[in-house]
Amino acid sequence: MNFDGYLQLHRPEIEATLERLLPRPDGPAATVAEAMRYAVLAGGKRLRPLIVIAACEAAGGAANDALAPGAAIEMLHTYSLVHDDLPAMDDDDLRRGRPTLHKVFGDAVAVLAGDALHTLAFEILGRYPERDDRSSYRADAVVTLARAAGVAGMVGGQIADLEAEGRPPDGERLRWIHRHKTGALFSASAEIGALAAGAGLPAREALARFGAAVGLAFQIADDILDETSTAEALGKTPGKDMAVGKATYPALYGLDASRAAAREIIAEGVAGLREHGLISDPLDSLAEAAVARSR
Amino acid sequence: MNFDGYLQLHRPEIEATLERLLPRPDGPAATVAEAMRYAVLAGGKRLRPLIVIAACEAAGGAANDALAPGAAIEMLHTYSLVHDDLPAMDDDDLRRGRPTLHKVFGDAVAVLAGDALHTLAFEILGRYPERDDRSSYRADAVVTLARAAGVAGMVGGQIADLEAEGRPPDGERLRWIHRHKTGALFSASAEIGALAAGAGLPAREALARFGAAVGLAFQIADDILDETSTAEALGKTPGKDMAVGKATYPALYGLDASRAAAREIIAEGVAGLREHGLISDPLDSLAEAAVARSR
Repeated sequence: MNFDGYLQLHRPEIEATLERLLPRPDGPAATVAEAMRYAVLAGGKRLRPLIVIAACEAAGGAANDALAPGAAIEMLHTYSLVHDDLPAMDDDDLRRGRPTLHKVFGDAVAVLAGDALHTLAFEILGRYPERDDRSSYRADAVVTLARAAGVAGMVGGQIADLEAEGRPPDGERLRWIHRHKTGALFSASAEIGALAAGAGLPAREALARFGAAVGLAFQIADDILDETSTAEALGKTPGKDMAVGKATYPALYGLDASRAAAREIIAEGVAGLREHGLISDPLDSLAEAAVARSR
Repeated sequence: MNFDGYLQLHRPEIEATLERLLPRPDGPAATVAEAMRYAVLAGGKRLRPLIVIAACEAAGGAANDALAPGAAIEMLHTYSLVHDDLPAMDDDDLRRGRPTLHKVFGDAVAVLAGDALHTLAFEILGRYPERDDRSSYRADAVVTLARAAGVAGMVGGQIADLEAEGRPPDGERLRWIHRHKTGALFSASAEIGALAAGAGLPAREALARFGAAVGLAFQIADDILDETSTAEALGKTPGKDMAVGKATYPALYGLDASRAAAREIIAEGVAGLREHGLISDPLDSLAEAAVARSR
């Protein structure tokens, strides 16, 4: 099955799960709940939940057990976008084709809605899958996501990214940033899929490595799009990295070499999974989709 | 044992646990790690970790199993202070007697350091106590903290608090805010102490109710201090609530009636624990310390 087919198969359940797990916008905290829904239900690519589902199935689990964990990772990803767009951070006006959260609800609500999405991600991982034979896997999933999201992962990548602005380009630092800012969460998505399936350590580790490769390739493709695409196609403001003098793959290596690097990273990731007998059509097509992006 | 004795007994272990669980300030993410340490190791009252320890002991557990979970709650509490102090939120300059985090490290680092502390809290709860017979309790502790911290708890209280500025005072809304903004995390502290002890649902629920009472009384005492104390004694800026026209207990009911309300709430909380055979000298003295505050 190709990527579009797999996405079409699971997208309705992914959207329904997100909708079900988000808080209702009523009571004294209604504004934050509304803002959370605005940010999450804006129609992202849902690549991370799809990876959770595909990894869970490849590890012998049922897609159904991966829906809530996938939603958790999408909540966490969305919180990071909301905080990243704040005036104190990247100061972005456009996200997923709409005004950013703080543009609509104000900075205070954006801080709090991001915080609440961050918390909600861990609440969901602590609760699902609800099966009794998964309680230790739930605690492991919490730790896996926390390591990927915190200072040793995504947040570490974000600060290194902020501090790299205006510095001379450095390929080693750029890869470190990409692996942490983007790769860590992709890696956690695949590993949490394995945990939802109740898989053992070898499958967890193999899928985590595959996820990391997909994440790095995805971020290189993002660098390329930042240089070649338009706001309309992207749904966010392009050219920002260049404008603030950030190192990117195309800036360091040129467009052709960047495309080749992304393809090579993906090929290695797929080969690694194949060695462990964990490759599947959906995972293969997800890896392909990460590099063949148009937005 | 009175409160000061209990605090002196456990404070060195609490501080050592916080220090040990915070990231080292090295590598590309060093700035965020430094900022996290600045915020957490500034010498707070450590009331929440003490409640975790005392609740764990009262439920038949060992203080040692409660140290890391207590540190997790202190990390979460500190993240909420860091974000609350941001210019986009309360815009405070002084906290725990020192310049606030964003004053020293800038707004972007304050957002990220708060985020990283938030994540770290859940990582710790997912990992500790490390005993095999606690894996399902760890997942439950994650869910307990997440419910208390998110839109149905602390963040909900914060948004309601922000939106209450300039509105006519309303006792019912004020209690809702206090119970959510402050009470929820105290309640979770006591319940997570019970979970660290491996306690069953009746002890969990009784301790959670007690923690909620202590939290509400603590917040009423905070309102009183905001009106009667100085920046020097508080280590933060007093009089802010009045200045922005926020409802407080003293503003609604006067100082004497507020003090009486706090005492009554604590007395009920202690009586509830006694019914379940869960009262202990440390818990009794913690409840007392929550209302007899000087800072």
